[in-house]
Amino acid sequence: MIVIGTGSGNMVVDDSFAGLDVAIVEEDLFGGTCLNVGCIPSKMLAYAAEVADSVRGAGRYDVDAELRGVRWTELRDRVFRRLDAEEAEGRAGREQSDFVTVYSGHARFVGPKKLQIELGEESIAVEGDQIVIAAGGRPSVPPPVAEAGLPYETSDTIMRIDSPPRRLAVLGGGYVAIELAHVLAAAGSEIVIVEQADQLLGPQDEAICQAFTELVSDRYELHLGRELTGLEGEPGALRLILDDGSVIEADTLLVAVGRTPNSDNLDLEKAGISTYDDGRIVVDEYQRTEVDGVYALGDICTPYPLKHVANREAEVVAHNLRNPDDLRATDHNAVPAAVFTSPQIASVGATEQDCRDAGRDYVATSTQYAEVAYGWAMEDSTGSCKVLADRDTGRLLGAHILGPQAATLIQPLVVAMTLDIDARTLAEQPYWIHPALTEVVSNALRDLNA
Amino acid sequence: MIVIGTGSGNMVVDDSFAGLDVAIVEEDLFGGTCLNVGCIPSKMLAYAAEVADSVRGAGRYDVDAELRGVRWTELRDRVFRRLDAEEAEGRAGREQSDFVTVYSGHARFVGPKKLQIELGEESIAVEGDQIVIAAGGRPSVPPPVAEAGLPYETSDTIMRIDSPPRRLAVLGGGYVAIELAHVLAAAGSEIVIVEQADQLLGPQDEAICQAFTELVSDRYELHLGRELTGLEGEPGALRLILDDGSVIEADTLLVAVGRTPNSDNLDLEKAGISTYDDGRIVVDEYQRTEVDGVYALGDICTPYPLKHVANREAEVVAHNLRNPDDLRATDHNAVPAAVFTSPQIASVGATEQDCRDAGRDYVATSTQYAEVAYGWAMEDSTGSCKVLADRDTGRLLGAHILGPQAATLIQPLVVAMTLDIDARTLAEQPYWIHPALTEVVSNALRDLNA
Repeated sequence: MIVIGTGSGNMVVDDSFAGLDVAIVEEDLFGGTCLNVGCIPSKMLAYAAEVADSVRGAGRYDVDAELRGVRWTELRDRVFRRLDAEEAEGRAGREQSDFVTVYSGHARFVGPKKLQIELGEESIAVEGDQIVIAAGGRPSVPPPVAEAGLPYETSDTIMRIDSPPRRLAVLGGGYVAIELAHVLAAAGSEIVIVEQADQLLGPQDEAICQAFTELVSDRYELHLGRELTGLEGEPGALRLILDDGSVIEADTLLVAVGRTPNSDNLDLEKAGISTYDDGRIVVDEYQRTEVDGVYALGDICTPYPLKHVANREAEVVAHNLRNPDDLRATDHNAVPAAVFTSPQIASVGATEQDCRDAGRDYVATSTQYAEVAYGWAMEDSTGSCKVLADRDTGRLLGAHILGPQAATLIQPLVVAMTLDIDARTLAEQPYWIHPALTEVVSNALRDLNA
Repeated sequence: MIVIGTGSGNMVVDDSFAGLDVAIVEEDLFGGTCLNVGCIPSKMLAYAAEVADSVRGAGRYDVDAELRGVRWTELRDRVFRRLDAEEAEGRAGREQSDFVTVYSGHARFVGPKKLQIELGEESIAVEGDQIVIAAGGRPSVPPPVAEAGLPYETSDTIMRIDSPPRRLAVLGGGYVAIELAHVLAAAGSEIVIVEQADQLLGPQDEAICQAFTELVSDRYELHLGRELTGLEGEPGALRLILDDGSVIEADTLLVAVGRTPNSDNLDLEKAGISTYDDGRIVVDEYQRTEVDGVYALGDICTPYPLKHVANREAEVVAHNLRNPDDLRATDHNAVPAAVFTSPQIASVGATEQDCRDAGRDYVATSTQYAEVAYGWAMEDSTGSCKVLADRDTGRLLGAHILGPQAATLIQPLVVAMTLDIDARTLAEQPYWIHPALTEVVSNALRDLNA
């Protein structure tokens, strides 16, 4: 068996495969995007940013405090000392395994079940009866940046920089852009965001997009509805040329306009594996590619490029590899997601615009944090919880939370959507602690009257 | 209809009763314990304490900050300005009602459905076909304190004091004691706790009690397994005499040894309504007392003196008053509770000692915050989530969380216990966001393997 990629791909392999000769191929850091350049370091940095915000806002709670600053180098080193150790431990664990061989290099298909792995100067041919493609994705870089020949950062690099930029231009207004902007802003950078759409965080519910965009418009310099047409200047003194002719100066550019699956450098056509136009490998509900015995999982194929989805897909692949006659399907319903910015955002299911566009007969309610007692304690004036339900059945269609603890608060709604618990039952049958922040959820559910 | 008490009792009355002549009797502040001297002010103060803790601990996240102090007077005034306004608004709303008469005085039964209300010098007789007793409870004061003739504070008074004591002796180690100790400690008081039991927070799961007691033993001066036998000295220079002869000096004493139902000053015997030995009014599952048409709810009768339970009981009473031929029962299963201290604690269902004592065949697992990615971000070293399930069926028996956001994290477990979702289904079917703090719950559930 061959596994390409050590993010969620690495999770496929456990001792139940000890009877096989397993090859694990990794061309970069062990542990993939999440551990090394994605979810985990960004959340560790975001938490420090949240603490800094908390100090800055302490006066609101009659706490007399002074924020002297964020010690970026110490912060970065604390985060990556821990994560690099995890990376090394993950690699060592596999290298010491009796049945696993780790190949540190880039793999390309040379036939349906044949790979050539580049290992420095050499390369080695490997064949597998079963292959798992879990090579992930990478930040997309648009032509004006790629062609300029000037330095730029991505989520792969910016978390490890030596010092926060004085003025950071962020290209993109999605969740990666927004999370990293929050981190760098806390570290002291002035933030300028350039985004094609008229609001930040486009795919979120319209109310969230609008509220969040308004909230950060005081904090960041926003250029919305604008495209980058050129990048000029020199390292440390960049000039971003926008489509209206305006020019933005910045010492550093962070490109965060989306991610591209790493399917374009595997010579998949030689294996007979096809991809969608957006680069995702075509798989069926069992995570099978078109080639028998070859599976894919995670960002290289999934419609939901999120670690918790990749983990689920890895479990499905592991099961299906072991039980080819009893295949399990991946459930992509009620997939939640969170943005760990300030304030936090979490969502699951349909947005209100989805419901409207689909012509659904739905009801929507929104409760403000300011309406519940714990929101009073937080002196919160911007948080909200919106829930959407089918008018006839009370089935939950979606939920969207903006505010502290959003990523935790969403979970009972995820449970309910997954297990088909209607809004009224969820609101009225379980107790909801008073005065916990969860009342913002139960009140929204009650208001639905569905 | 007559309602005695305006905490959850006040929630019983809505426009569906507009056809009746409704009397609401309140001898004290409108809104009851929760709004005026309980859950809400304590959580507002606790949140400020949490912010102060966050500033104090900011260095752990490489955030350079200085805590200059908590501005107690401003904090207190901010909290009670808001709550006193709510109180006044609640009262005014009732006073302006067409069908409600508010009596500001103390009510006593003179017959099964007859009350005499003391209104200053006068008193008035009131009769009702339907009566709701929701007169709540009050802090218990043990004889050595009551008989000493020296000043002491309770949860009714301490949140409104003018300045934090230099050294505060807290009698009691339950949740009220611990929440208020946290608030006053943040405000600058030195804290000494005297508790009869060998650990704090007695009724909690044994692991929580032990961990919490250890945690705060660095922070507070603890005298565990000790009883107060005498109180001496003078105002501002008190001396607490303990049963081992030791003496504790403190300028202020907070008595927080439990609460007593206010059933002993209603002349219930004249109504033919009996109480348990602990003072709670006897009610059936429909919240009916022994007298037809007389209901009770909340702390004066419930086995769960918690606001979310009182709210539920108020809904049940409101329904049953309107529908005497279609009574609804109160569900007291899976009642969660939280302690808003540092760190937070939340629990639902059976403790491990309950399971063991009942001879249940159970499985228990505990996941540390430090084992999940968001716990890494928090640099948490003490948080934990313990879950207990029936070994055969995987039915959840209880859950106990110690750590940040505990009161929010417990909710999916409350939902599962209430709706009989087994541990495996809860762990495996819904997605759990990575890397949200909720992973501490899903990992504990997965580890159960139940």
